Amino acid sequence: MTLPQTPHYLIDMGLLRANMEKVAQLREASGAKALLALKCFATWSVFDLMRDYMDGTTSSSLYELRLGRETFGKETHAYSVAWADHEIDEAVSYADKIIFNSLTQLDRHGARAQGIATGLRLNPRFSTSGFDLADPARPFSRLGESDLDRLEDALDRISGVMIHYNCENGDFDLFDRQLTRIEAEFGGLLKRLDWVSLGGGIHFTGEGYPLDRLADRLKAFQDRYGVQAYLEPGEASVTKTTTLEVSVLDIIDTGKLVAIVDSSTEAHMLDLLIYREEAKLPQSGEHVYQIAGKTCLAGDIFGEARFERPLQIGDRISISDAAGYTMVKKNWFNGLAQPSIALRDEDGSIRTVRSFSYDEFKGSLS
Amino acid sequence: MTLPQTPHYLIDMGLLRANMEKVAQLREASGAKALLALKCFATWSVFDLMRDYMDGTTSSSLYELRLGRETFGKETHAYSVAWADHEIDEAVSYADKIIFNSLTQLDRHGARAQGIATGLRLNPRFSTSGFDLADPARPFSRLGESDLDRLEDALDRISGVMIHYNCENGDFDLFDRQLTRIEAEFGGLLKRLDWVSLGGGIHFTGEGYPLDRLADRLKAFQDRYGVQAYLEPGEASVTKTTTLEVSVLDIIDTGKLVAIVDSSTEAHMLDLLIYREEAKLPQSGEHVYQIAGKTCLAGDIFGEARFERPLQIGDRISISDAAGYTMVKKNWFNGLAQPSIALRDEDGSIRTVRSFSYDEFKGSLS
Repeated sequence: MTLPQTPHYLIDMGLLRANMEKVAQLREASGAKALLALKCFATWSVFDLMRDYMDGTTSSSLYELRLGRETFGKETHAYSVAWADHEIDEAVSYADKIIFNSLTQLDRHGARAQGIATGLRLNPRFSTSGFDLADPARPFSRLGESDLDRLEDALDRISGVMIHYNCENGDFDLFDRQLTRIEAEFGGLLKRLDWVSLGGGIHFTGEGYPLDRLADRLKAFQDRYGVQAYLEPGEASVTKTTTLEVSVLDIIDTGKLVAIVDSSTEAHMLDLLIYREEAKLPQSGEHVYQIAGKTCLAGDIFGEARFERPLQIGDRISISDAAGYTMVKKNWFNGLAQPSIALRDEDGSIRTVRSFSYDEFKGSLS
Repeated sequence: MTLPQTPHYLIDMGLLRANMEKVAQLREASGAKALLALKCFATWSVFDLMRDYMDGTTSSSLYELRLGRETFGKETHAYSVAWADHEIDEAVSYADKIIFNSLTQLDRHGARAQGIATGLRLNPRFSTSGFDLADPARPFSRLGESDLDRLEDALDRISGVMIHYNCENGDFDLFDRQLTRIEAEFGGLLKRLDWVSLGGGIHFTGEGYPLDRLADRLKAFQDRYGVQAYLEPGEASVTKTTTLEVSVLDIIDTGKLVAIVDSSTEAHMLDLLIYREEAKLPQSGEHVYQIAGKTCLAGDIFGEARFERPLQIGDRISISDAAGYTMVKKNWFNGLAQPSIALRDEDGSIRTVRSFSYDEFKGSLS
């Protein structure tokens, strides 16, 4: 089998199915529904596999919404921090539920969404995020309504709320405590609703996560308030399924041994740069290299890696955990060739489902 | 005249020509050549205007190189932090000069570049960058060769060097001192070369910059070493020519008044997020708003703006200095509609040269 040229994202369908089975197990045990968060992962060529295990998709814009409706189907939730006037009718035409971010958005657009279930984003003013940048509960956050009077004002126009406050939260006890706090602060409101989305960021597909306890907790939550719960797993759906495959183009000694590869944090795994994090790289062996990208950016560095043997030019390196918030943010910075997208099927064969060309780079501008 | 729908980048051709006239003035007065750095700005529909004022382009990848050759023409420099084996022949076919980042890259690919002028990147181990992330002289920097013995080793195979060490440097005296330091440390080497590129990052098109002193300094440098100097203005070529035009979609009170607009730092002006900087926003008037994007990112904030009158939904806001490192990095995060690209011609008329569609969003994945 000829491997596709690097760089490419390589999605392992067997690992994806293993995650999906956990999602399905949680749905079955809890009665909660699970929607794929397209903002994290929208590589629709694997939706045929995912569709059987999930209830649908949720979105953060008109284009994501339409993509969810067209390529995934099933239940389709529409959320946007702010809808434009010219978007709202089209959004309603794709959506089963539309969730407004603010009371003013509900006031402005709610009447045009009367044919479908309508919700509002509730911001509980706490979260599990360790990054201020990504913390929906940060001071002056614009994400959702917190004030009980304002929420009350919306109640006759909505049937549910979306509360997104977890971020890569692998700690069930923390989830439990925070849900209890939501119940204490907003329970009166929740009782008058039909559905509550608890958003994404619960890392329930991670190794050792107590799925049964989460299922029980969600079941109790639904029973107590008489609501249908939704989860919106993005990263949890695709975690550890995908690598970014790169090749070593140069090895230089700058005081450290640096291996320059045919990719880039900024262009192909942007969150590493935004959050100043290191990539998950091979860590076994005595031979240490800094793995760096090939853009002009001085800080285009994936991180430190260890190998059993000295690296050679042409060697391939797999960068792990490259599914979530990578492909959806890739860009043409420096005119770097964009990674192809390839799938490793469950029989072990690899096929490329998308390659990108010079003409697409040129066409990205004008 | 109907204005294009927001969001769009709006390039003012008159302001671009004013910058270009400064570039041409510097070239004429100094004898230095000026190449547009495509990594900063590659919107080729305005190259017909720029071409008359500049000597060509420089690049940071095969795709940028080809774009420069095909759409700008004139002198075309090829640089990449690392060329892949499969790229090098094609690169040489487009380039007038090829500049290798390391001695190992020169060793590997130099023989295949014998038909064209060959250079090496020299890293002087100091720079004007205030950002570690963007500082080519940061510790363990992989960008270029510093060691005199290694540079000496390359001398019989190269006719020039590229030294990129300025970053938005508007201080001529600092430029002068640092060039003197380069002369002191590397003068013996420079004397044996035909050309020296001093890279980009000299903000010589800024208001009040002493162009004449820069021209004299470059002339003296060239005379002293018998070299042709090159500059690679990116930001300096396009500074203050372009706005990102956005519309207010929602206004909410989170303790601050927040105006949510139909754009995003991360998707449309990425450097604001990467470098944690504020956008250049209107600052005149008593009415203060935080201007925020519409992605799900809590920190998607352009910055604080002031207006003469209270904002209304539907109001348009111009975000300044939106030419450099914006369009070349835009991406489909959250499925946000990408800004169109529009030009304000010198007669005041505005025309859209590129719009982006849902199908392009869908096609960016697979």
